[in-house]
Amino acid sequence: MWILDNKIYVVGIGPGAYEQMTMRAAEALRRCDVIVGYTVYVELVKEHFANKRFLTTPMKKEIERCRLAFEEANKGYTVAMICSGDAGVYGMSGLMLEIGQEYPHVEVEVIPGVTAANGGAAVLGAPLIHDFAVISLSDLLTPWEKIEKRLLCASEADFVICLYNPSSKKRHDYLQKACDLMMRSKDPDTVCGTVSNIGREGETFRVMTLKELRDTGVDMFTTVYIGNSQTKMLNGKMVTPRGYIHG
Amino acid sequence: MWILDNKIYVVGIGPGAYEQMTMRAAEALRRCDVIVGYTVYVELVKEHFANKRFLTTPMKKEIERCRLAFEEANKGYTVAMICSGDAGVYGMSGLMLEIGQEYPHVEVEVIPGVTAANGGAAVLGAPLIHDFAVISLSDLLTPWEKIEKRLLCASEADFVICLYNPSSKKRHDYLQKACDLMMRSKDPDTVCGTVSNIGREGETFRVMTLKELRDTGVDMFTTVYIGNSQTKMLNGKMVTPRGYIHG
Repeated sequence: MWILDNKIYVVGIGPGAYEQMTMRAAEALRRCDVIVGYTVYVELVKEHFANKRFLTTPMKKEIERCRLAFEEANKGYTVAMICSGDAGVYGMSGLMLEIGQEYPHVEVEVIPGVTAANGGAAVLGAPLIHDFAVISLSDLLTPWEKIEKRLLCASEADFVICLYNPSSKKRHDYLQKACDLMMRSKDPDTVCGTVSNIGREGETFRVMTLKELRDTGVDMFTTVYIGNSQTKMLNGKMVTPRGYIHG
Repeated sequence: MWILDNKIYVVGIGPGAYEQMTMRAAEALRRCDVIVGYTVYVELVKEHFANKRFLTTPMKKEIERCRLAFEEANKGYTVAMICSGDAGVYGMSGLMLEIGQEYPHVEVEVIPGVTAANGGAAVLGAPLIHDFAVISLSDLLTPWEKIEKRLLCASEADFVICLYNPSSKKRHDYLQKACDLMMRSKDPDTVCGTVSNIGREGETFRVMTLKELRDTGVDMFTTVYIGNSQTKMLNGKMVTPRGYIHG
């Protein structure tokens, strides 16, 4: 019996275009035989990596996607599981390490990437300069009460808040509900921003107040930022100061 | 009179080694005449960029460093201001946009990088898979009461918490104080982790409980992670599940 000593890289490819990937991530993809991922992300990198086998699974098939990666590693291939942004923020690295328990001879290495929070922040200006909270509005795997509590507590403590998954077909009013909750502690004039298609074609951003955000429609490709009490609009950009004391 | 149309890139170089930079960040540095930064970060990139002028200022001289960058741009040079991690997380992008108000003819472009939270998370496993809060324990520009409130609220709402600047010479007991505050809501057995020298020589990580973390000494090169109620230790790694509902 052979002991195969194979490896899976779980790679965050950054928020969009190939150039937003780290050099370390690109090197890991070059070393692979097989690249596994959600169809959309595989399309983003495909042209840059010749002679690879690409395996895709649709959205919501995350567990199957992980098993597919481990099965390929089991056959002796070096595998990359790619995720948009960072694999460790609402990404696949956790599930890969969990399922990896069943494949103890496969080494899993997580390679970080620029997550949407940071990619979008750079587009908007500098909203996340001070303490911030990242909250997903998706209640697929999290009870809404838990999300609600986080929105309330993060607002009460004057965190800058970054929202992932602010909307979907089934959850078209969640951002509105979230804004109402945050306005219990945050001023309706708090500076907010949205960024869509971060690092991709059609990238756009908007800066507005919290009460305007409440009535703004967003899609699932949008990341939303709610400032803290010090956040201001500067030349159309969203900027949070470094602190509360002068400096 | 000429209208100079010059540019400053504010570049996050990632958590450590050159390879942790995005390709876009490296391209921006190649396009520059002058690279400005804190001495330590300039040393990290220097060897990879020949024929550049490097200007450094020591720590705590951030405002002077920004002015230095704008003055160089004013002279007609293309300038990069580099920051470790992401320029938008406790970094220089905010201050650059603020001081940029005085230099309206200089274009400022922020290029995101992998911040310590994500870089360290990849080393530890997958601690930030679900909603998280990032809090700096430095009270240089933030009243301690504000930091205290954030620690309490984030714990109460069961966020994973990532701490920046957990210690310094003057603040050797701040992590202990923070742990005591978080233990008002979080179980003392909550899975926690620390990562030092992320992406650099001497990178190390440890996984432990919150009550063990309380009595652990950390230095200023350490990033600290406190899990949520679901975070577990898997094969010595720190892993937060994707949600609260099975899946």
